[in-house]
Amino acid sequence: MTASWVEVPEGSDFPLANLPYGVFDSGKGRRIGIAIGDHVLDLYAVADAGLVPHGAALQDVDLNGFLALGRSSWHEVRGRLTELLTDGRTEIQDAGIDAFHHQAEVTLHLPFTPGDYVDFYSSIEHAINLGRMFRPDSDPLLPNWRHLPVGYHGRSSTIVVSGTEIHRPRGQTKQEDEPPTEGPTRALDIELEVGFVTGPGNELGVPIDADDAGDHIFGMVLVNDWSARDIQRWEYVPLGPFLGKSFATSVSPWVVPLEALAPYMVPGPSQDPEPLPYLRTVGDWGVDLQLEVGLASVAMSEPDVISRNSFAGMYWTMAQQLAHATVNGTRIGPGDLYASGTVSGPDPGTYGSLIELTWGGRDPIQLSDGSQRRYLEDGDTVALRGWCEREGLPRIGFGECVGTVVP
Amino acid sequence: MTASWVEVPEGSDFPLANLPYGVFDSGKGRRIGIAIGDHVLDLYAVADAGLVPHGAALQDVDLNGFLALGRSSWHEVRGRLTELLTDGRTEIQDAGIDAFHHQAEVTLHLPFTPGDYVDFYSSIEHAINLGRMFRPDSDPLLPNWRHLPVGYHGRSSTIVVSGTEIHRPRGQTKQEDEPPTEGPTRALDIELEVGFVTGPGNELGVPIDADDAGDHIFGMVLVNDWSARDIQRWEYVPLGPFLGKSFATSVSPWVVPLEALAPYMVPGPSQDPEPLPYLRTVGDWGVDLQLEVGLASVAMSEPDVISRNSFAGMYWTMAQQLAHATVNGTRIGPGDLYASGTVSGPDPGTYGSLIELTWGGRDPIQLSDGSQRRYLEDGDTVALRGWCEREGLPRIGFGECVGTVVP
Repeated sequence: MTASWVEVPEGSDFPLANLPYGVFDSGKGRRIGIAIGDHVLDLYAVADAGLVPHGAALQDVDLNGFLALGRSSWHEVRGRLTELLTDGRTEIQDAGIDAFHHQAEVTLHLPFTPGDYVDFYSSIEHAINLGRMFRPDSDPLLPNWRHLPVGYHGRSSTIVVSGTEIHRPRGQTKQEDEPPTEGPTRALDIELEVGFVTGPGNELGVPIDADDAGDHIFGMVLVNDWSARDIQRWEYVPLGPFLGKSFATSVSPWVVPLEALAPYMVPGPSQDPEPLPYLRTVGDWGVDLQLEVGLASVAMSEPDVISRNSFAGMYWTMAQQLAHATVNGTRIGPGDLYASGTVSGPDPGTYGSLIELTWGGRDPIQLSDGSQRRYLEDGDTVALRGWCEREGLPRIGFGECVGTVVP
Repeated sequence: MTASWVEVPEGSDFPLANLPYGVFDSGKGRRIGIAIGDHVLDLYAVADAGLVPHGAALQDVDLNGFLALGRSSWHEVRGRLTELLTDGRTEIQDAGIDAFHHQAEVTLHLPFTPGDYVDFYSSIEHAINLGRMFRPDSDPLLPNWRHLPVGYHGRSSTIVVSGTEIHRPRGQTKQEDEPPTEGPTRALDIELEVGFVTGPGNELGVPIDADDAGDHIFGMVLVNDWSARDIQRWEYVPLGPFLGKSFATSVSPWVVPLEALAPYMVPGPSQDPEPLPYLRTVGDWGVDLQLEVGLASVAMSEPDVISRNSFAGMYWTMAQQLAHATVNGTRIGPGDLYASGTVSGPDPGTYGSLIELTWGGRDPIQLSDGSQRRYLEDGDTVALRGWCEREGLPRIGFGECVGTVVP
């Protein structure tokens, strides 16, 4: 395994094989950087010294300009950065630039300015669990589910970077046999998701072929699609979730490039019935990515892990989601976010939301401080983690996607 | 009635009392302008000559910077422009600027860069009609409908200006007792809507009070929310419309300021039950706006008017929609579009979509070229119009919102 001359601590999410992109501020305004070990490499400075191609796109306040360049440019820049971090010590030192900052000493910002945000519903276990709870009197899996990746548009303006406080939303809810009331949600939940961020995009009216998805998907982030279940339950028919979701969506600060994830791609799950031709792909589009949800009350210094599962089992893949989302010719563009939908496995300890973990509040979770949770309380902190590891390959991770609930 | 020294033809949508904002290109790139009679006044040029306040925000390629300034600035600029067009002939001439262009000689662009796009469902007649067709076995009006303005997020990237061609979308559909197939929609429809465009916005986590809506709503546009009914019908449970809508949404090129509409505001319809306190407003939030849908086949030189109705009867008002959309603290911002949902009246000739006008294709419409329509055919042109008129007041209009279907 090639190593970087920059120290990468054992177990770091950010070895040389990762090089995820983010936006940081060390006091000089927002700049693009990549994470390496505990450090961030300042790409503004590196571009200023003329050490990377496409410097103009890298000297910006978000990734959107770089995303717009497309796959061959992404590959070029990644190749050059890998080179610099492998044998470029002298080159960077000779440039006399202040290139590295401790991650702990910078502020991380939203890495991209979101265009459209789509949220899918691609875990069959999650869809069945929610169907059972929201529509107890009918088949939990609706007839369309196995034929297309069901999804909807979410709100872009409230996509926030990990660490942003989550205001407990108010809204309209209704208890059975009582008139509706307005007030703070009493069923604040999380959704453990993974999303992909897109690049250059297509022309209006021209669908993207599933096999060309790799030209459009730049990389992936962890996503917490915070949900107010009581608001959602009352509002969602017939047009889908709206205010139960639109108050906040947290994303991890580092976008892990698809190129870094390539060694961890695995076959997707078998699909029955076979999807229509526009949803068929050649090659592996499953991602062997381990996921974990941590929850800490104000009284706890370390979160309890309340769920562990794998992204590899998601029924619909990213390539299928992108092909489906554009089959009608819609325009995708740099900074669009396409989230997977809650990732749940087959067993209770693998569910990606509290509504599933507590089965609608029936079976509270026991926390290590002695308290119980049906849904989130003020002061609770949720931390999502995700990483890939495989025999003979370095572990690469997404860092954390964290949020604390405030009243 | 005060008149402008710029000629305004009889029956024009754009008298001095209107002054809607748009973005045009006369060969020098995109500039902000206002419509007066058959002309557009170039605000870049006017600002260059120092004749209006807030010139920097007006010298931009879209309205977003101006929208961000807020109500008192909007009022100031409108006052000054009214003055210039009333007694400012010499002032403009002395400035030696090329201030006016014929609307017919410029290209009109999307006036604002869309942030988030929300589509409501606020006509009770439309909700009942669609409920009857999509859910024939249950109460057409769902239990939440009279308690809150039901809505969902639409796609921002495919909001296009009037005149943009509409590509017939492909997608997945399913006929009863047959497996799903993929192909061009066979049920391409329109939705006659009116939308409002927002200004500065709020802080994340801070709802907007219904009575403060006037500080946030800059103005209104006509909206055609093109819909593929066969795609929509198969995909929309349980997360709402997605690809059946996301291929195109046309808006009129001129944003009519709320200040111009003020004389035409009327009481909204009575609401039963009384809405919750956060949805109550003081003052009139209905808009006495006449609407019309024209449809022309390739063979026709003039469209047939296939529907006529009034916006005044919409059950939920703009102020209520905005208060509801932000009750959970979501962030609104300059260029967000909030559309009304299809405007339908109580009688067949007043329905705002083909699915209602033909009752799901059962009763085709007869066109004056002898052909019939269930849904749109390739080559069909749809033109929406809207205007306000009232005894003793000038007629003000929105211009047209037009689109032609291409294969």
